[in-house]
Formats: sequence, C-alpha cells, structure tokens
Amino acid sequence: GGSLARAMKDRGLVDEVVGVGRGEANLKRAVEMGVIDEFTHDPAEGVRGATLVVLATPVGTFEPIAREIRPHLQAEAIVTDVGSVKGGVVHALEDLLEGSAAFVGSHPIAGGEKSGVEASDPSIFDGARCVLTPTPRTRGFAIDRVEALWQAVGCRTVRLDPDVHDKIFAAVSHLPHAVAFALVAAVERMDGGLDLRNFSGGGYRDATRIGASPADVWRDIFLLNREHTAAALRVFEEEIAAIRREIEEGRGEDLEARLLRICRIRRALSQIQGG
Amino acid sequence: GGSLARAMKDRGLVDEVVGVGRGEANLKRAVEMGVIDEFTHDPAEGVRGATLVVLATPVGTFEPIAREIRPHLQAEAIVTDVGSVKGGVVHALEDLLEGSAAFVGSHPIAGGEKSGVEASDPSIFDGARCVLTPTPRTRGFAIDRVEALWQAVGCRTVRLDPDVHDKIFAAVSHLPHAVAFALVAAVERMDGGLDLRNFSGGGYRDATRIGASPADVWRDIFLLNREHTAAALRVFEEEIAAIRREIEEGRGEDLEARLLRICRIRRALSQIQGG
Repeated sequence: GGSLARAMKDRGLVDEVVGVGRGEANLKRAVEMGVIDEFTHDPAEGVRGATLVVLATPVGTFEPIAREIRPHLQAEAIVTDVGSVKGGVVHALEDLLEGSAAFVGSHPIAGGEKSGVEASDPSIFDGARCVLTPTPRTRGFAIDRVEALWQAVGCRTVRLDPDVHDKIFAAVSHLPHAVAFALVAAVERMDGGLDLRNFSGGGYRDATRIGASPADVWRDIFLLNREHTAAALRVFEEEIAAIRREIEEGRGEDLEARLLRICRIRRALSQIQGG
Repeated sequence: GGSLARAMKDRGLVDEVVGVGRGEANLKRAVEMGVIDEFTHDPAEGVRGATLVVLATPVGTFEPIAREIRPHLQAEAIVTDVGSVKGGVVHALEDLLEGSAAFVGSHPIAGGEKSGVEASDPSIFDGARCVLTPTPRTRGFAIDRVEALWQAVGCRTVRLDPDVHDKIFAAVSHLPHAVAFALVAAVERMDGGLDLRNFSGGGYRDATRIGASPADVWRDIFLLNREHTAAALRVFEEEIAAIRREIEEGRGEDLEARLLRICRIRRALSQIQGG
C-alpha cells in the first residue's frame, strides 16, 4: 500500500491519496512521510470521491471491506487490489461490486516480509511482474487503466486467468512460505539448549527470511487458496520424504543423481534471474 | 579452500600454498590469481614438507585422502579440514592419522553454494563462526595452532564435541539444505507448462538459493550425518504436515496462532543477526 502510494506520488500520477486503516500511529507516520495526504479509519469515508480504490489489507478482509464501501463508491470508480490470491476472491468482489464500481484484480510480485509505512519502498515495482486477472465480466476501460498504472510505476504486466494465477502462486509463493514457516518451527523444536541460532549461517537465514511474514496475511492467503496450496504441499511432502528415505537407506547414488538434477534446475534459474 | 588460501596469503600467514585437486583448469586459474603458488594432482606429493594440510574436498573423500597422504606427512604436520560433518569423520581421521600427523576438526560457517576458485572470497571469514571439535585424543599444540589460524583470518572460534556439532548442524544447515532441494524439485514437478520460473519472486529465490549447492558435497554431508539429518527431517515433516492439515481443514485460528508464534521467533533472529 505505502510503496504504491509513494511510487504514484513520485511520478505525479495522483492528486490526493487517502489512507484508510486501523493503526493510528502508522497512518500518522505515513502523513508525516508524505506517503498519504490524509487518513481515516472509516472505509466508507475513505472512498468518497475516489477515482481509484486499492485494497492492500490481508486478502481475507477484501469481502467485508467491499461490502462496506460499496454504497459509497462513485459511479466511475475503479477498485483494484494487491492480494496474493485471486480465484474465488475476484469472483466474490465482482459479485459484490456489480452495478457499483469496476473491479480489476492485480497482484504485483513485489514487497517483502515487512509491513507498515516505515518498510515502504517505491522502487520495489521497478522491473517487477504484476499479474492482472481479468474475467469475462471485467470492464475494458478499467483493466486498461489499472494496467497502465502498474506499468507507470515500473511493473511488467501480464494477464492471467484468476484460477491459473492461484495455481502458479501456490507453487512459487504459497508453498515456499509454508516451508519457511515449518522450517523455523522445526528448528525451534530441536533447540533444547543447543542454542541453535548461534550457529545458523546465511543458508538458514535466507531459507527462512519469508518465515517472518505477517501471520494474518498468510493465514488468509493459505485459507483462500486452500486447494492449490494443499496440493502443492503434498507434492513437496513427497519430495522431502524421498530425500529423507534415500538418506536413511544410505542410497548414495540415487541421492547424488537427485541432487545433481535439482542443482542444475536451480542454477538455471540463477542464470535467468540472478541470485 | 580457495577462500582460506587467499585469507592466509593476504595476512602473510603462509610462505607457500600448494593446491591439490583434480580440475586442471581451476588449479591453473588459482595459480594465475595468486591464490596458490603451485599445484599437483597427487595428494602424496602435495603434502610433502607441508606444516599444515587443509582438507577442503567433499567430506566423503577425507578418509581415502588421509589413507593416501598418511605415509608422506612430516612428523609435526597438522591436518585439519573445513568439512560440515564431524562425529564419525573426526574419529575415523584420528584413527587413520594416529602416530603420523596431528588431526584437528574445523568447520568454518562461511562460504556459499558456489564452488571453484573464481567464487573464492577471503572476506567470508570476517566475523564468521568457526567450530573446532577436539576430542580426548586431540593434541594441545595442534588445536591451539588451528584455532589461532581461524582467529587470524577473522573467525570467532568455538569448541564443540564432534557429535554435538553434528546434531546442531543437522538442524541449522543440513535440514535447510534438504528442504531447499525438495522445494526446487517440487516446484519443477508442478510446472507442467505453467512457466513457473517466470513468476517466482524474491521469496522463492531466497528460500532455494542453497538448492544450487553442489550435489557431491551434499550427498556426503547427508550420508555422513545420516542419523541426525534424518531425525531433523522427521521433525520438519511433522511441522509441514501440521500446517497443511490446518489449511485443508480451514482451521484459521489455529493456523494464525501457529504463524504468529513462528513469525515472532524468526523476527527475533533478524534482530540478533540482521536479515
């Protein structure tokens, strides 16, 4: 939210930004930093007169917020979001906002595990992918404007079916987050006085960086993309069990062949994306 | 290996460094870069006249190498290593080198997923931990000299029992590597034309960075630390299954409580170590 507001303001793409939220301190700080012009705790008041409304709260709050703001949206308002789950969420918002404002689902692949305006960074969109998820009900003017906005702040946009989006992100994002959470929990469980964190190096730190992501955001993502995430977790559980069995059974050749194949896949990614 | 040679040369801690290895191109490049003074493919020749021998190959090769160099070591030579597994490895090397050279197990917690002299970096030891694993058979002058060496290149040393070392590193290093390998394999399996790597962001990249680590090195580590690694994997498998079940069963409150606890643990680590 804060990052997008700053990116838009930096480029003169907006006249006025109204922040809507619960945390008074964070909103006051956002005004001080010039990220937003004013704020309110009341969504209905916040959207009054707005030409663009961006939902940037945990994805499970989108439906109740849409219900609340719906009577107060002006006729040509566009509502978009930055949520990590699309499928059912997009369809629910389309139903709720039908006849009120035009909804377009967006998901910028940017941002980190930190939240709050102090962590906002307008440069996160530079060269980042932003997925737009139009449906047969999406209005043409609205998706064109939303796509132009993301491109203006630096994103490379791509349009995907909402359910395909959810299948893709279950694999490349929701699964890795669940894995990082489980890894932090497992290492904690094994501590038993070993003072493990004194011995963890860069490998553990990188592998679990996203394990510091906010609990409410990720509860919503996991539950709203339940089927795809659970399916991805089952595939992962098979892979980790296969590695564990090869270790337990001392099957060195099988294990090395497996690791070699994996290492090649991961190195190919580094060559494309760096890092 | 290369990183340590450079760190020692930069500080004038050594007169001459002889590189021993199989890869001709890598060894020639190491001479060009001034990392080593000369090289040989023959371990017996490489250790002749050496006061310090550092084993920096995959940990499974230590035993055969020790057998090969043993008759050629000079009386007061010290042999150490940079291997990630200690327990059985240390005891086997002590047995093999008994009456020949003094062995001291070392494990500097530094270095990354890349190998070869081009990836060497003498600064990786700055402030890094280095674990030394003395046993009742370790000779005093040898551990003191090896410890002084690691401290001279910038490490903070700590002494641990070899088996305690292996238990700790099964949790904080060997488990995270197995997890990263399984994650790369799972995402690859789910691709099926979705072109997933085009959508993976920084989360997946960080979580799997160590998934590009060399297959031969990690086969050896997993097999030589088999019991502790398999035990750590079983704990992890319980944690990931618990998260998956909460997602499948839509248990939002349990899931959020779990994630909140995990996120606090991981944030506490960031406050201590950064990142």
